Parts: sequence; C-alpha cells; structure tokens
Amino acid sequence: MALLDQIQEPNDIKKLPQNELDDLAEEIRRFLVRNVSMTGGHLASNLGVVELTMALHLALDLPKDKIVWDVGHQSYTHKILTGRKYGFMKLRQYGGISGFPKRSESDCDVYDSGHSSTSVSAALGMARARDLLGGKETIVAVIGDGALTGGVAYEALNDASQMKSNLIIILNDNNMSISPNVGGLSSYLSEIRTSDGYIQLRDKIHNSLSDAVPGVVKGISRAKQSLKSLMVPGMFFEEMGITYLGPVDGHNIKSIVKSIEVAKRVNKAVLIHVCTKKGKGYLPAERKPSQFHGTPPFIVKTGKPANSQKAASYTDVFSTEVLKIAENDPAMVAITAAMEDGVGLHSFHIRYPNRFFDVGIAEQHAVSFAAGLAAGGLKPIFAVYSTFLQRAYDEIVEDVCLQQLPVVFAVDRAGLVGADGETHQGIFDLSYFSAMPGMTVMAPKNGLEMREMLKFALELGKPAAVRYPRGAAYTGLVEHRAPIELGKAEMLYDEGGVLLLAVGSMVKTALQVKETLNAQGIECSIANARFVKPMDTELLREAAGEYHLIVTMEENVHSGGFGEHVAAWYAEEEMQVPLLQIAIPDTFVTHGSPQELCRLTGIDADSVVAKILQRIEK
Amino acid sequence: MALLDQIQEPNDIKKLPQNELDDLAEEIRRFLVRNVSMTGGHLASNLGVVELTMALHLALDLPKDKIVWDVGHQSYTHKILTGRKYGFMKLRQYGGISGFPKRSESDCDVYDSGHSSTSVSAALGMARARDLLGGKETIVAVIGDGALTGGVAYEALNDASQMKSNLIIILNDNNMSISPNVGGLSSYLSEIRTSDGYIQLRDKIHNSLSDAVPGVVKGISRAKQSLKSLMVPGMFFEEMGITYLGPVDGHNIKSIVKSIEVAKRVNKAVLIHVCTKKGKGYLPAERKPSQFHGTPPFIVKTGKPANSQKAASYTDVFSTEVLKIAENDPAMVAITAAMEDGVGLHSFHIRYPNRFFDVGIAEQHAVSFAAGLAAGGLKPIFAVYSTFLQRAYDEIVEDVCLQQLPVVFAVDRAGLVGADGETHQGIFDLSYFSAMPGMTVMAPKNGLEMREMLKFALELGKPAAVRYPRGAAYTGLVEHRAPIELGKAEMLYDEGGVLLLAVGSMVKTALQVKETLNAQGIECSIANARFVKPMDTELLREAAGEYHLIVTMEENVHSGGFGEHVAAWYAEEEMQVPLLQIAIPDTFVTHGSPQELCRLTGIDADSVVAKILQRIEK
Repeated sequence: MALLDQIQEPNDIKKLPQNELDDLAEEIRRFLVRNVSMTGGHLASNLGVVELTMALHLALDLPKDKIVWDVGHQSYTHKILTGRKYGFMKLRQYGGISGFPKRSESDCDVYDSGHSSTSVSAALGMARARDLLGGKETIVAVIGDGALTGGVAYEALNDASQMKSNLIIILNDNNMSISPNVGGLSSYLSEIRTSDGYIQLRDKIHNSLSDAVPGVVKGISRAKQSLKSLMVPGMFFEEMGITYLGPVDGHNIKSIVKSIEVAKRVNKAVLIHVCTKKGKGYLPAERKPSQFHGTPPFIVKTGKPANSQKAASYTDVFSTEVLKIAENDPAMVAITAAMEDGVGLHSFHIRYPNRFFDVGIAEQHAVSFAAGLAAGGLKPIFAVYSTFLQRAYDEIVEDVCLQQLPVVFAVDRAGLVGADGETHQGIFDLSYFSAMPGMTVMAPKNGLEMREMLKFALELGKPAAVRYPRGAAYTGLVEHRAPIELGKAEMLYDEGGVLLLAVGSMVKTALQVKETLNAQGIECSIANARFVKPMDTELLREAAGEYHLIVTMEENVHSGGFGEHVAAWYAEEEMQVPLLQIAIPDTFVTHGSPQELCRLTGIDADSVVAKILQRIEK
Repeated sequence: MALLDQIQEPNDIKKLPQNELDDLAEEIRRFLVRNVSMTGGHLASNLGVVELTMALHLALDLPKDKIVWDVGHQSYTHKILTGRKYGFMKLRQYGGISGFPKRSESDCDVYDSGHSSTSVSAALGMARARDLLGGKETIVAVIGDGALTGGVAYEALNDASQMKSNLIIILNDNNMSISPNVGGLSSYLSEIRTSDGYIQLRDKIHNSLSDAVPGVVKGISRAKQSLKSLMVPGMFFEEMGITYLGPVDGHNIKSIVKSIEVAKRVNKAVLIHVCTKKGKGYLPAERKPSQFHGTPPFIVKTGKPANSQKAASYTDVFSTEVLKIAENDPAMVAITAAMEDGVGLHSFHIRYPNRFFDVGIAEQHAVSFAAGLAAGGLKPIFAVYSTFLQRAYDEIVEDVCLQQLPVVFAVDRAGLVGADGETHQGIFDLSYFSAMPGMTVMAPKNGLEMREMLKFALELGKPAAVRYPRGAAYTGLVEHRAPIELGKAEMLYDEGGVLLLAVGSMVKTALQVKETLNAQGIECSIANARFVKPMDTELLREAAGEYHLIVTMEENVHSGGFGEHVAAWYAEEEMQVPLLQIAIPDTFVTHGSPQELCRLTGIDADSVVAKILQRIEK
C-alpha cells in the first residue's frame, strides 16, 4: 500500500502524480475489502465510488468546499482520504469511527446523514447560506439513483431549479438502491446509460434536422426547448430546470474531474450523471451487490460469511410466516420500499410476483399506496425498518389511521440495531405509533409469538403494527403460547415480589433479571405486555398493590413510550403504585454492538437489576 | 336554480341535455359563492374545478368508478353532484358535512383526504387491488399542480409508471398551490400551458424531420425517444413512463369528457393535463385566489369579510415579530412550504426577498433545507402548520435534532383548528417533538410571550419549536412577563389548593377554571408551563405535597404529551402526587367550532372544572 501510505490528511491526494491515481484506487479497493471483511460494513456502495470520491477530492478544496453524502454509507473512501484510514480497524464499533459521515469526526464531514434522499436539500441550504454570507465555496451533493426515488430529493430538485448560483449535484447512478432500482425514473436512466454511440447519433440527427428546418429550429424558442432533448440525454432534469452533464464514466477519474470543473462554472444547479458499478473490483460484490450492501465479516477469497452459523432472525421468521399467510389468504399482499432482502420478502416475491410491490425508496408512497390497496379490498403488509418508517409518520396518521384501513406494519429493526448507529436505531416507533388514534401496537417475546401476532394483525381488520428487533429470533419461552387477544398481556411467571412488565425483546432480558433477583432471594414475576396499544389496563389494575414494584421495560425512548403510558394511567386512576420505568434515555444512541448499547443506555439485565435493587433498598 | 334542482343523487347529471351543462356549471358556481359566503370554506379551488368535476361525473360511473381527490378541499361540486347539496347549509360545522371527502358521508367518496399529494399513491393502490381482484372499474386521481411539488406524489408517479393497466391521473393545473406555485416543474407546466399554436408547430417540425431523416427516425428507438418530445409537450411525464394527454381546457366540459374517454383506453398510467382557473367566475376570487382559498364568511358583492372586526391572531403576532428579529439579526431567514400568507410571512417576503424561501408543498425538503441553511451558518425559522409538519417527522429527527442544528420551528395552528376537521387538527406535535432528543418545545400563554419565545428560540442555538394556536392571540396576563428561561415554568397565581399546570393556549382556560373554582371557595393556583421539553422538574418537585391536586392541561393528545411526562416523572421520582391530566383523548377530532370541539374533547373550562370537582369530592 505504498500510495495509500502517503495519504495521511485531507488534500494529500493532490500530491500524487496523475499516473498513479488508478493505482491508488486499486489500493483503496484492497484496503476496503480487507478491512470490511474483518469488521463488516457497507462494501458494494463504497467500492463503486472510489474514483468518484478521489475525483471530488482532486477537484475540490476541502474542507472549504463541502460534500454532502446522501445516505452516507458510501463515505468510506472519503474517510480514508481525510486522515481516518486507521479508524477502519474499529469501523462501526463502539468508540470507533462511524460508518456514516459525522461532523464530530472531521471538518471535512459537513452533514451527518444516514437516511436517504436529503442531500440535495441540505446542499441547497448550504449554497443559499453561502450566497447570503458572501462565500465562494463549492457545494456538492452526491446522491444515488436509488435515493433519487425518494420524494424529498425531488422536492429539493424542484426548488434547486430556482438557483442563480452554483450548486453541483452528482448523480451516482449504479442502477441499484439496496435492491435493484425500480420505477419510471430508473428505466429512464437506464436508457441513457446503455446508449452506446448515442452521442454520435444525436449529432447526426441534429445536423440533419438543422439542414432540413433551419428556420423552424432557429426561430422558435418552444421548438428549441423540444429539440434540446435531441442533444441532451438528461431532458428529465433539464425540464425541471437543472442543467444536465453526462453521462460520465464513474471509474474514469480524469473524466469526472473534468466534469466537475465544467460544472463549477455553471451559475445554477447542475447535475453530473456519473455511472458507476456497485461492488466494482471485488467479484463477489459485483455479482451480488445486494448481499454486499451491508455485510457481516466475510472470507475475502470466497465472499462467504466468516461466521456461517447463523440463528434464524426475526426477519427469517417473518419471511417464512408471510408465505403461509399468503397461501391461506389470497387478499394478502406485501410491500417493500427497496428492501426486498432486508425485510425478508425475497421468497414472497418469487412465489407471488403479482402480490409483491417494491415501490423504491419511497416510504411515504408505500404507506398511502397500502392505504389504497386496503381501500380497494386487499390486506397489505408493509414490511419496513422502524427508523425508515419515520418518513411516513404523516401518511400513517392521515391515510391509514384516520380511515381505519387494515394496513399491517411489519416493523423490523425495532430497538437498538448496533453498528449502523444513531440514524438507524429503531427507538421511536412505540412513541409515534402510540400517539396515533386507532392504531394497534404489538411486540412479540419470541419468534413463535411473532408469527401469531402477524396472523392476528392481518385478521384484525384495522391498522396494526408488529415491531420486532434486528438479529436472532428468541427461541425461549415457547411453552408460553396463550392465544393473542386484543389488548391483553400474558402473565409468564407470577410469584409476587417485583413484577417485570416487559415489551417484546425485553421479555428475554426480564428472564435474566428474574434469575439474578431470584438468586438473591427476591421474588420476581414477569408479564409479557404484548400490546403497547391498547394497553392491558385490567392487568395494571390487578397488579396494583400486588407487587412490591412494577417495572416497565421497553427498547424505545422513554418519552411517549410504554412506561409513560403506564405511569400516566396509574396517576389517572389515582392508584399509588411503586413504578420503575426502564427505557432508552432522551438521547441519540451511537454505534456499537447491541449488547454494548444496551449497557450504555441502561436497559441490559445488569442495569435493570441494579436499578431494581436500588429502588427496593430505599 | 332550475337545473341544480334536478340534481338530487349521483348520476342525475347524466339526465341533463348537453346544451344545459354550461348553465348547470353557472348555477353551481352561484350556489358555491352564496353558500360559502355564509359558512366560510374553500372557495377558489372549488370554483376552478366545476366543469372538471362535472366532466368526471359524466364520463364515469359512480360509485363503481372511483375518484380520489388530492387534498380534498376541492370536492364541493362532487358533493353537490352526489346528493349532498342541502348539507352545505352546515358546511364544516359541527354535525354538518365536512369540507373534505369523507367515506362516512357517501359511497361516492372513496378516500378521506386533507393533506396534499397522496392521491396518486392511493389511486394506484386501488388500481392494483382492482387488477388483483378482477375488477373493471375506472380509477382516477385528481391532483393539483401545487400538490405535485410534494415528494410523495413523485414517488407515486415513479411507481405508477410500471402499471400495465389503466390508471388515470388528472393534473388540475391552475398555476397555484395556496400561494402561487414555485419551482422547476411549475415553470415547466407554465410553458406548456402558454404555448398557443404549439400543436401546429410541432406537427410542422415533425413532418419536416420525417422527410429529412427517415432512416434515422424509424431505425433507432433511442432517437424515437428523443423525437417524442417534439410531439409531446408533457415529456417530463413521458420520460417517467406516464402517458401524457393535453393540455385540455379545464372549463370545456366536452373536451375534458373526450380526454377521459381517450384515457380510459390506455393500458397504463395516463395523465390528463387540465388547465383551470382558480376562483373562476367570481371576480374577487379570480383576482385574489390566495385570499379565497379558505375564506371566512364574506359579502358576495364586495368579496370583503362579513366580519371585519378581527383581533390580531398569533399568526399576525408572528408576522410582526419576525420582521423585528430580522432587522436585528441578519442571519435570520424564513421558510414556508407554500403558505406564505397562511403562516404570516408575506410582509417578510416583501421586506427581505433574499432571506425568504417558499419551497412549495414540500415540508420534508423544507426541514432538510433548513438544516442545510443552519449548517451553513444561518438561523432559519420554518413557519408551518402543526398538522403539515407531520410530513417532516423523520427530517426533524435525523437532520435537525441529530446534528443539533439551530432550526426554529414556528408551529402555527397547533391545537384544535375547528372547521377543517380531522386532517387539520394540530394535536400531535407536543407528542412527536417530545420524543426527539435535543429538541426544545415551548408554547406561549399570550401574544406577548410568543414574541419572547421566538426571540429565545432564535438565540438558543439548538433545535427549538414554538407552538401556538389558530385564531386571536390572547391579550390577557400581559403583566406576567418573567424572562424566558430554558426549562422554567412561570408561576402566575400561587394560593395553594389546586395547581393548574397549563401549556400555552390552556393558560387562558386555566384562568376561567380558577375563577369558577374560586367562586366555589376552592383555592386555585396557576403555573404557565412554558416548556414541554425540557420540563420544569424543579417546579414539579416543589409542587409535590404543596397542592391538593395538580392538573396538567394541554391542547394535544394525551399519548406522549405533557401530562404523561409529568405523571411519568413523578412515578420515577417516587413522589405520590394527586394528578389529573387534561388532554385530548385518543381519537380523531371532527370539524366544528373550536369551542364546540374543546367541549367535545373535554378540555374546555367547564369540563375541566367538572373533572376537578369530581376528583376533589372523592
């Protein structure tokens, strides 16, 4: 890694001779593959933008100039080029560097991202701030074609078209979101991308046309507008008022640098269409970019996971159960927002292609679309990560809940997700769902119960959410399988003493707590809450006075969560009940292993035991 | 109203002879103007779509066929044509008909709407449900060009392009959202709209071109794609994969009917571009469509408000204060999402055009854009209605709070808004803001305090929200003006007894409650909470044991609101405090006067007094 060794801080890349740049790209790729094979992380997207990132660093003056990375998971090369190479040993680990841009890590990171499609908005804001403050810096948003299906990106393009000063938008087009990209715009970009010899062709047409109808071509601006599309492949953007440059080979550093130089001279919003290949340079990732989007540690030689022993995840359970439900109920249909694999709908897609809908990165549309499907007589399940569903808060309220349409939300990655950090923790859903009138909110204690809850939700005929965590489905407590009843908790162990009233994933933790307390001679009961909404108020009423202490346990922020509901209900009922609320405190939670993060946020068994003992001893 | 009298139920319009349709349109317009002048309501948009709606009812077979009205405030003619003419006497009044489509009112209303830009999603869902269930009905979304700036509409178009069966999207293009429409797409539509003689021209070019380069034109599909834009003004839509028809004169019933008939034969998603005039037929509304978007009762002859005595609203106070802040702080900038008048930014726009940003109906972009402005060194205020800000939940969390950027949210219409009903009540914001780490949430007791809070928010240097209700700013209690201090409540009257701990608008209610209680010999204290987050826990600590009863009062749903936070805090601190939580119950709240709705939801003074007495008597 002779060249990479020379990259110690921002702009070091500029000291390298031109003819060594391709070799540096090669070294960066090897560095990325080797490191991510050990730590896990986002690989395919990062391999795709090595040259693009290098070109940006060559053409721009960092940190004066600003790059806003959409989604942010493709910023590894940027981190390498800005002095964070050594951080990759602890990539995405507690205390190590983040897998996303972080302003706290470097002044070359100007915007923390993690959720898709907001880069143009942010960059436009920075550009307008620059203009008002009299600055001269160049501002660049780098956005993927997948992210471009997100509505907020389009809202931003619509606004950016009014710019009268420079703003550069780089469209990193790899024909993928995490899944293969979908929709009209994707087809459109594909056409541009695959048009070999297109430039010659359009010149030919243009020349013929000018000869044939010179008067018409020159005379009338309307015609010029239309004729433009003979010359410009990016008419879609031009028609919105964004100058289009490209397509550019995204693995040719010189071409990209040249395009950026040209773009810098345009006094309006300008889009450079850069075509890249996801996974570029590492064959397993080129072949299966979805699999190497976010990958656990793997064996470089084969591309196989380093740890092949994998317990079935909640996603796996969902994946299987949804097939069974579909078989029994032809009205059931499934939706994903560009996460077919992630949410476990691949088998369903294969088996029921007509009942499967990938709407692209478009959670808002997914929800209103689901409401439309339900209004049309079907039973849609929208399988989605907790954190991404935040995008559709308004549509869940206004389209689904208000009309009481039977849409089921299969909310995956609910709770602390680990290595992806702040932007991906699914710790708000219990709060936002709870505030929505007419919503039913469930969380299963184990894989078996999750299946029952999904069936229950489908049969409920009203809006319902089942939220479950990332990772292995808990297989314990399978002997406890009382039928699911609306708003009813399940008493698992009742021996008086301390009552642990746990939501979903926290039931497993409650078992550990109980063991420790029992070992210290403290009696401990456990109820599986099952429903956060409607709450089992009958259980609450009966429990009052029966236990020394009631402990609510949830993997969600405290504000608006289960614990608050319980406390508020007791207060309202004028019942004086000793209550301890275990929840995630009012803070964003960094990256790390879920175990570390549970400890950090005080929701692991040890912390819960300590808090209980403290309360009991008082 | 001889013709209107013949319209008693759905499809009656089809019985009229063709040559009387224009007269019916005229009668409908007179009916709308007369009725809305008495009840208030949405006028300009409804006057614009009289012929369009009639054409839809002529070309379709309701209720088998389905019309999804985007936003829904333009559905008055639809209501008239479906047997609800008499309901207009009590339009938007408690117990009367809604100003929006309501499935509970008619089986010709297939989708409740109220928020913008979701109609294509919903219609696409219904169309796919139809195809799976083997139905044959026609499904139409009617969406305005303003609503088309909302990202979810674009997400839906991107998805709809994949349709292989019929779906009709009617673009009701009046060049307006509520404010004049903005952005690239708007300019683009304007060009199409104003291109008189365009059709002849494009034919001429096409013929010339075919003669000149027949081989090229015929031989290569890429060229065909580009040449298409010579023939099709709606290339933007065509490039997304949506068939484009138009532009069509939106006040020519026959033309629209014909277009719909053509569109029905297309086996994919097809967009009909219909050009209408907002306010059509009523001069004051044609001249000032923004003013007649939503109007109070007015005098038909002059267009002037029937009740010209209007107390200054919170919006007015904001409008004035924001000018003062701007004068003192050149870094302050303001953003609206297509509501310049509604949120009170018109004067600011005039005075500081470079510091004013109307981003269109695009709340998500508005928030990420604001984050970008703040990251670029400015102090943005986003003025927005509580209910519409729901759209940007995710961006507030991920872009603003996570980065702790100093974006100020001026949250107007927070609480019960009245006549607009379910979809417009601003009753969730205290809950959603509270759950967001790093957010500061304030609500002022009166206009004076609102000004102080705005200044405080601007100086805070962190994310902050000031939420205030629709209507007249309270002018009482101006002698109480302790400086705003982060997380500090303001004790207004302390005489022991019952402590009313009231948030924002509820302080005024608390005064009434106190009067009534005092009259009955019950001592009553009032604290103005000021901050919902961070809460004044010092006050809570001191209050414990000092009062017979603590009553939290808020104009927000109970779940995740102030009352729950207080109850949870006391429980956590093991303080046994008699607590009564006054909040909006877990339900959507219908239309009616704010007074009626407060009574209905139990948050008016009488209800609060009754609940307090009940608790005290126990």
